[in-house]
Amino acid sequence: MNKSVIIVAGGSGSRMQSELPKQFIKWCGKPILMHTIQRFVEFDSQMQIVLVLPKDQMELWNMLCTEYNFTVGHSVACGGATRFESVKNGLEKISQECLVGVHDGVRPLVSAQTLKNCYNTAAKHGCAIPVTDVIESIREVGEFGSKAVARANYKMVQTPQVFFSSKLKATYEQPYRDFFTDDASVYEAAGNTITLTEGNLENIKITTPMDLVVGEVLMHRSSS
Amino acid sequence: MNKSVIIVAGGSGSRMQSELPKQFIKWCGKPILMHTIQRFVEFDSQMQIVLVLPKDQMELWNMLCTEYNFTVGHSVACGGATRFESVKNGLEKISQECLVGVHDGVRPLVSAQTLKNCYNTAAKHGCAIPVTDVIESIREVGEFGSKAVARANYKMVQTPQVFFSSKLKATYEQPYRDFFTDDASVYEAAGNTITLTEGNLENIKITTPMDLVVGEVLMHRSSS
Repeated sequence: MNKSVIIVAGGSGSRMQSELPKQFIKWCGKPILMHTIQRFVEFDSQMQIVLVLPKDQMELWNMLCTEYNFTVGHSVACGGATRFESVKNGLEKISQECLVGVHDGVRPLVSAQTLKNCYNTAAKHGCAIPVTDVIESIREVGEFGSKAVARANYKMVQTPQVFFSSKLKATYEQPYRDFFTDDASVYEAAGNTITLTEGNLENIKITTPMDLVVGEVLMHRSSS
Repeated sequence: MNKSVIIVAGGSGSRMQSELPKQFIKWCGKPILMHTIQRFVEFDSQMQIVLVLPKDQMELWNMLCTEYNFTVGHSVACGGATRFESVKNGLEKISQECLVGVHDGVRPLVSAQTLKNCYNTAAKHGCAIPVTDVIESIREVGEFGSKAVARANYKMVQTPQVFFSSKLKATYEQPYRDFFTDDASVYEAAGNTITLTEGNLENIKITTPMDLVVGEVLMHRSSS
């Protein structure tokens, strides 16, 4: 089955203390977003790429593509007020039935193995959410104070989260709810079963200046 | 009130793919454990340091102290079969009432601000557990499958966890239970209230080759 990915890049530069939205920051030679897109086409050269960008960033993106001679074919959809709306807009660009991943634009360190796990698991089970173990002890907090919980009972969630396109489109017909933090939460709210698969620890979301530095080290390790 | 710390260094090198126990690995110029100890004496030069080491690593530690001319005063207690037992052995070296922290030997990146938060909060509230926000989405997993949970309801737990020494000693009189993964869990099982304070994101536990590289970057950032 054909594969596609919706790359959501709606971020600002606020946590990065930067004027430039974080997905456009030059990192390891070019804007982060270009690295992210390349991971997908290197995994499958036939991958259909849909990039979701805020309307007022599209011109800048086009200029960057020219400046960096970035020629990977992709379509661009318009970002919405919420991530939910952005993904929904991206899904409209997917016309044929396929496996569709939804991926954070600022996760350029997703490994080929994670991509393989995600698309293969989704092909078999209908969906795939990449997760990793929780390494630190965790505590639950609330009005009651806080209490220790067993970290073995929790997983850290990454992207790409992969689904059959028709099924994901159907779940995005729901009204928006404020606990929709990722696609898995939207998909399961519609009554569907979630299947987990193994992500890679390096697949961090680059959102702070510290992440830029740590990510660069991980990038060099993964390519050496 | 006087301050002390029990630094628990019972690790092997297995996850590090190293013959040398991880706390002794040379990192940023010297064994990790020496960096960790120094963070505490730099914070408070009067800090009483108790190092808990497996019996068969004590000779190696002495040799390393000579080799690196490491002259920070500290006593050494013998590690037990569990972390619980190791901390209990360490507590026996604390004779006078004081604030006692329990810290992982392989967390050399604890900041002065975190140490200040921990000891000050414990002095005021009886105990202090340093935590940071959960950055990634998390899911709870179990026999039921998995479900999204609100990450705002969880915190990542670090060390040092700081208590009044008499109170911590009393809680360590309990029989060992297998959910005792850190001192907070021992302390609250004895009916005490936990107080959280702010840790620092860089305060990672160095347990894998990837952590060594990431940690080195964080070390240079924190000292620049």
